[in-house]
Amino acid sequence: MTRSWWGWGNVDEAVNGTELEDLATLVGAALGGPRRVAADPVDVRSLEIADPRIDVPNSLGVEFSLAPVDRLAHGHGQAFRDVAAAFAGHVTNPPDAVVRPSTAGEVRAVLDWGSEHGVAVVPFGGGTSVVGGVNPPQDRPVVTLSLEHLGDLIEVDEVSMAAHVQAGTFGPDIDRMLHPYGLTLRHFPQSWEFSTLGGWLATRSGGHFATGPTRIDDFVEAIGAETPAGRWESRRLPGSGAGPSPDRLLLGSEGALGVITDAWIRVQRRPTFRARANALFTSVDAAAEAMRGLAQSGLQPANARVLDHAEAALTGAGDGSHAVLVLGFESADHSLGPWLDRAMELCSDHGGRIADHALTEGDTTGDAAGAGGQWRRTFLRAPYLRDALIRLGMVVETFETAITWDRFPDVTRRLREVATSNVTEVCGGGSVSMRVTHAYPDGAAPYFTIIAPGRPGQQVAMWDEVKAAVSDAIIDVGATITHHHAVGRDHAPWYQRQAPAPFLAGLRVAKQRLDPAAIMNPGVLGL
Amino acid sequence: MTRSWWGWGNVDEAVNGTELEDLATLVGAALGGPRRVAADPVDVRSLEIADPRIDVPNSLGVEFSLAPVDRLAHGHGQAFRDVAAAFAGHVTNPPDAVVRPSTAGEVRAVLDWGSEHGVAVVPFGGGTSVVGGVNPPQDRPVVTLSLEHLGDLIEVDEVSMAAHVQAGTFGPDIDRMLHPYGLTLRHFPQSWEFSTLGGWLATRSGGHFATGPTRIDDFVEAIGAETPAGRWESRRLPGSGAGPSPDRLLLGSEGALGVITDAWIRVQRRPTFRARANALFTSVDAAAEAMRGLAQSGLQPANARVLDHAEAALTGAGDGSHAVLVLGFESADHSLGPWLDRAMELCSDHGGRIADHALTEGDTTGDAAGAGGQWRRTFLRAPYLRDALIRLGMVVETFETAITWDRFPDVTRRLREVATSNVTEVCGGGSVSMRVTHAYPDGAAPYFTIIAPGRPGQQVAMWDEVKAAVSDAIIDVGATITHHHAVGRDHAPWYQRQAPAPFLAGLRVAKQRLDPAAIMNPGVLGL
Repeated sequence: MTRSWWGWGNVDEAVNGTELEDLATLVGAALGGPRRVAADPVDVRSLEIADPRIDVPNSLGVEFSLAPVDRLAHGHGQAFRDVAAAFAGHVTNPPDAVVRPSTAGEVRAVLDWGSEHGVAVVPFGGGTSVVGGVNPPQDRPVVTLSLEHLGDLIEVDEVSMAAHVQAGTFGPDIDRMLHPYGLTLRHFPQSWEFSTLGGWLATRSGGHFATGPTRIDDFVEAIGAETPAGRWESRRLPGSGAGPSPDRLLLGSEGALGVITDAWIRVQRRPTFRARANALFTSVDAAAEAMRGLAQSGLQPANARVLDHAEAALTGAGDGSHAVLVLGFESADHSLGPWLDRAMELCSDHGGRIADHALTEGDTTGDAAGAGGQWRRTFLRAPYLRDALIRLGMVVETFETAITWDRFPDVTRRLREVATSNVTEVCGGGSVSMRVTHAYPDGAAPYFTIIAPGRPGQQVAMWDEVKAAVSDAIIDVGATITHHHAVGRDHAPWYQRQAPAPFLAGLRVAKQRLDPAAIMNPGVLGL
Repeated sequence: MTRSWWGWGNVDEAVNGTELEDLATLVGAALGGPRRVAADPVDVRSLEIADPRIDVPNSLGVEFSLAPVDRLAHGHGQAFRDVAAAFAGHVTNPPDAVVRPSTAGEVRAVLDWGSEHGVAVVPFGGGTSVVGGVNPPQDRPVVTLSLEHLGDLIEVDEVSMAAHVQAGTFGPDIDRMLHPYGLTLRHFPQSWEFSTLGGWLATRSGGHFATGPTRIDDFVEAIGAETPAGRWESRRLPGSGAGPSPDRLLLGSEGALGVITDAWIRVQRRPTFRARANALFTSVDAAAEAMRGLAQSGLQPANARVLDHAEAALTGAGDGSHAVLVLGFESADHSLGPWLDRAMELCSDHGGRIADHALTEGDTTGDAAGAGGQWRRTFLRAPYLRDALIRLGMVVETFETAITWDRFPDVTRRLREVATSNVTEVCGGGSVSMRVTHAYPDGAAPYFTIIAPGRPGQQVAMWDEVKAAVSDAIIDVGATITHHHAVGRDHAPWYQRQAPAPFLAGLRVAKQRLDPAAIMNPGVLGL
């Protein structure tokens, strides 16, 4: 399988052929204009790239590459703005080299060398950042440090149900290596196939389960990292009240403090009992109220995802005439009849109509199977579709946040208005749809998708204008600039407005202490 | 009600009269010697106390007290070493003054004044620290900052089920003020009656529920604090992935970074459905295995506490011939029959015999009622009993930790051995018993109680010797110096061995940035 140098995932799995033709026809019809024509990416070998500003010495003992294609492929993440630009042949600032350490000691050697020579180090797991988290800074020599040779399962503790995993291990590899033990991590961010444990930890990734343990933070038992100031290693502890949690300072640090090399993570027995239902609602606010009821019930459904009318139609979960609540339970321990019954009752109490429901039992052979399987396949397929829409000249991107329930209807309405008016003004039309991806007892995370026509060569600038407007609105209403997409460089100005000032001041000096030469992923978090 | 100046809680509720006589007889019999005689505390008015080294200016506009009794009562916490010393009239270093701000602005004024004049500030909620968290440092003038005038409920958000509460609010007051809304915080540390929200947050307190949301960290939506460098305020967010969590840096900071003034906390509907059972096991290891099964089942019992033979007898949960697993479920939403049935089945599968079980329904009028009520009353009563044993000349204290399940049997055996051999050597005899207070999918928190005869005037020194030995053992086996008792000054040397070195380095400079005059609770966490 060949990874795309400019866009999502594997080249062989991209939307092409008749699928692309059909999409082109669909988009043309939706826009009321002629059938759109898909452009082709530029030939990466034809691109000009500046000579490396540095020489990685062989004496470092770490594998490295100066190959232009390697440097270009590591010069961007997978935000719309990255992909649209790379597709057109623009990679603003590729790293001067890509280094590939295969031990924590080699990571350490790179950091020592970078600190000594003023070379910035950008940690790179799967490179799926959608917020500029892996885009090299422009003002100094940079190496991108790929974790791809640190991709092993080190140890499994079946008694405690925990696993020691290297940071560069990809989602499917983690589950494949845990499978013989009957275990699974059960953490499925949308990037799952092409992102790594270290990237999830550094960016506090969110899994696709709507409640319960779903954010990677909750799976962490201990973390190992290399910082320029030395090795960071927390103890394997199921719980501790000894001072502020050291793990929680690394979680979300986005490579600014050091490179996460490995972690002990909590794993689970593979679920064998499943329950699922779809409930239809006349409005998305009513569906969200049912979601609130579920989140406050203590039933802990694995899934309780709300799709508005448009998203329900888009994903095949509905026909567009209703908002849909997709409900699911999973267990490795017990049958879920009483759980599902009470959850369906709660949906009905909130005006929902149960369209279908099912209880199933038995191990499933792959992570794509089971009750959540169809949803998950569509979910994992979405970034490929995004790339195809880029080829058709569209502006296509998402933004997300979280807010407490008391303000949920007003804030989601406000954000939809701001997005819609800006998309209309900038793009002359387009769609804004919403799902609700995560539910907490005290609030939820709304997630918006925008698809709009772009002008040739101006797609990125157009999106940037819309994005700035919705980001301002998010900060102004008191929400968070990101629920699970991280901060990176793109969100940094709004993050700096959001975070408590003394916390930022403390974080800044902590970084200076651990990274005195300021080489660690400069610019992320605004640091 | 008059608070005891030297020991636990209210004077009127102390163990006295026939209860104390019976205890004296019991202790004498247990030690195989003559009936012990209870000593009386010294008259606090007879104690000499140094003149205050500082003058709190009236122009500060903050209520303050220089009264000797006030200073002495705020000169120590509630560790055995504090209480045994104060009982004998020794308060090593009382604060020079007690200040009682009634607004966040007044807290700020105290910090500004302290920073300017080099006066240390020790935040004081209920003063129930068992690790020297409120014992003033000796090398400079100190004011203890009592939060007792910041004890109000500010706002309730019934939709999001969250409440905005001032930091100085005591446990029973929080529940009393939430009661009219049908809500409860449902966080019951053993200090509940005499400790405050701010203290819980600063020390990462653990509630008495064994699984599910029980540590105060999990109830936090947002925190407000005053630091010498300015106000710290996080947004009300149900979840966020924007950088490292600012709240998680304040949680466990023990007053070293600033004074927590208020917080938005997640509350719950008052439970109306309850289920409970007691299961008997021939060994504590077998009971712990059942506890592991429950913690890994996803059933989320509110309680799943294990008591060894001795603790079961001590608390009335058993007759001493078995280890006991105390099982409980609570819900405001649904009847718990299927949950209890599966949990009892799991206990049986692990060799447990169900001694009794019950399902109940209906709101309860007080927090002492309901399925966990009897347990909770005994639990909250324990510190009064501890004081009575101190009066009888005993060495009586607890220590606790947490460890993953794979190492649980070996580590608990090792710690019991170290405690027993040291208690025997130092005290010439005594008992070491164990309960398991908190269960996680990947491990558990064992909690040891030591009761041994003391030599007059040497009780504190005797305990310090035992404590140093068990603390060394805890760090050597890779466990945590505290699961929920915090670090304070007493645990600081071991905490410094436990925490990752780069994290400590970062924390230290963050403190220097936020507290440049080093006035904030100097010495806690070893900072």
